[in-house]
Amino acid sequence: MNLQIRLVSRPHGLPKEENFSWVKQPIPEPAEGQALIRTLYLSVDPYMRGRMNDQKSYVAPYELNEVITGGVIGEVIKSKSPSLIKGDIILGNIGWQKYSLISSEQVRKIDPDIAPISTALGILGMPSLTAYFGLLEIGQPKEGETVVVSGAAGAVGMIVGQIAKIKGCRVVGIAGSDEKNRYLQEELGFDATINYKTTPNMTDAIAHACPKGVDIYFENVGGTISDAVLSHLNYKARIPLCGLISMYNIKDADVGPRIQSQLLINSALMRGFIVGEFADRFEEATTQLAQWLQQGKLKYRENIVEGFENTIQAFLGLFSGENLGKQLVHVADPSV
Amino acid sequence: MNLQIRLVSRPHGLPKEENFSWVKQPIPEPAEGQALIRTLYLSVDPYMRGRMNDQKSYVAPYELNEVITGGVIGEVIKSKSPSLIKGDIILGNIGWQKYSLISSEQVRKIDPDIAPISTALGILGMPSLTAYFGLLEIGQPKEGETVVVSGAAGAVGMIVGQIAKIKGCRVVGIAGSDEKNRYLQEELGFDATINYKTTPNMTDAIAHACPKGVDIYFENVGGTISDAVLSHLNYKARIPLCGLISMYNIKDADVGPRIQSQLLINSALMRGFIVGEFADRFEEATTQLAQWLQQGKLKYRENIVEGFENTIQAFLGLFSGENLGKQLVHVADPSV
Repeated sequence: MNLQIRLVSRPHGLPKEENFSWVKQPIPEPAEGQALIRTLYLSVDPYMRGRMNDQKSYVAPYELNEVITGGVIGEVIKSKSPSLIKGDIILGNIGWQKYSLISSEQVRKIDPDIAPISTALGILGMPSLTAYFGLLEIGQPKEGETVVVSGAAGAVGMIVGQIAKIKGCRVVGIAGSDEKNRYLQEELGFDATINYKTTPNMTDAIAHACPKGVDIYFENVGGTISDAVLSHLNYKARIPLCGLISMYNIKDADVGPRIQSQLLINSALMRGFIVGEFADRFEEATTQLAQWLQQGKLKYRENIVEGFENTIQAFLGLFSGENLGKQLVHVADPSV
Repeated sequence: MNLQIRLVSRPHGLPKEENFSWVKQPIPEPAEGQALIRTLYLSVDPYMRGRMNDQKSYVAPYELNEVITGGVIGEVIKSKSPSLIKGDIILGNIGWQKYSLISSEQVRKIDPDIAPISTALGILGMPSLTAYFGLLEIGQPKEGETVVVSGAAGAVGMIVGQIAKIKGCRVVGIAGSDEKNRYLQEELGFDATINYKTTPNMTDAIAHACPKGVDIYFENVGGTISDAVLSHLNYKARIPLCGLISMYNIKDADVGPRIQSQLLINSALMRGFIVGEFADRFEEATTQLAQWLQQGKLKYRENIVEGFENTIQAFLGLFSGENLGKQLVHVADPSV
């Protein structure tokens, strides 16, 4: 039998089990031109929380009573498509279910010989592309500049920091545990880190970690962490605005110091973006990322939760900061 | 005798007479290489309020007990500089005094035959250059887009709106009186205007005036007006951040809805700037502005206060919205 997770009501604040339904169905048969995919890994990402709201955004809201879609690595187990062969490993925006019907144009084939297949959802996938274009295109890092990244131990943040190091920047990471911060400094070469959960005064901590001020702030979290960083911007600072994870589940209005004066007095730039804007350059970026990976200049971590039945828990873990690195759910192994 | 206005203490909130001193001095004699200038017009600008604070910003704070500097149109009345001749009309960053000593590299000569000399402080000067580069370089207007400008009846705002019309945009101006708004619509061709002082719900008013949303918001004011506009951004909206006049004199912290989520969900850009960033293109821009002026595509207004003794009053009038167009102080007429 197939098993699907559907969104049945829109969460207020942190999603609860009652917002989802688990639907059992017979495994479907592919029609002409289709293939049947078994999910091997599925991705849970912070942006998915935004899609659970019924609001205008860069991606359409999830429909109620539909399967929650997201990145999936799957294996073709039956095919009536000429371009997909049983055993092919594919990447697609498929979603939270054990089996799916797809057509070839919905997916991209993955070569399992290049790297572990799960990397297509992380270090060689969307999170890294997000880090790559956000930092390089919007951030425009220059050697010797100071880059601060929040959510630094997440899938995007840890790549941002490493690319900034490759570009010769001083890198300061903000994350929520000493264990994460140790990893960032000792394994990934971050110059300094701040544990926002145990630091009494974030503004002072930023000043201390960034003696020459902040040239780039790669924003993943929002809220008071953001307020603290923005009070230390340098002239012509750049702020790629990638995510606001601390705000996704709050029920109250997001109120704080207006940031316009910081941007004005520093001639600074803030820009929201999504990785899809840069789709025509994904190949170039993936090649570069793979090269850095091969050269040992990029390292990665995956935080893998076992079993489809733990998907919602893995998703909610993103908001309590449980993951070090890319959060994945391992659903099944390839047959061969 | 010369008369100078100096800053003697830093204002909290709206500046008061006691923050300034009036200093009488003998008119100085030019040394070798210098010329003596008589002030004809002087400029009062909102940004000067920022310089009265002792804070890091894009321009250094005014020093206490020094003459307040700013744009001046003056006449050379004595010269020991080979390149400045008695009777020359010059533009310089000189300040609030009746007579000044300058060297030739501090000033630029103005040709009084091209346009009234006062225009060098307005329609052919910094305010227009600010509008030009902020709108065209940061705003990147495209035909058919909707441009909202706050402080629309000010020296910068009214040029922004007119350039946006030249570029084929729908232009919505926000200003503080019906008289100003009538002028913007009837004389300058703005498509719609909003009187923020009499409009009970700015968010609704923006929605009504911008049925297709906001592609560019040229920010001159900040505060709740800004909040209202930012809730109507379109995908990939651009926000040139030029000034925050509503905030310059407040004593409390500037707190409001954090704007990051609006920028994020719309992949929008906000960028603080000052006109000096574009100094190497001033000539190109001035040529274009003069051409538009000649073609009747740009109109301008000056709000001229008579007499050096009314300089502070003219400056304070900027913050109560008394000026329609560029605020100048007329100090003297040229001798010829």
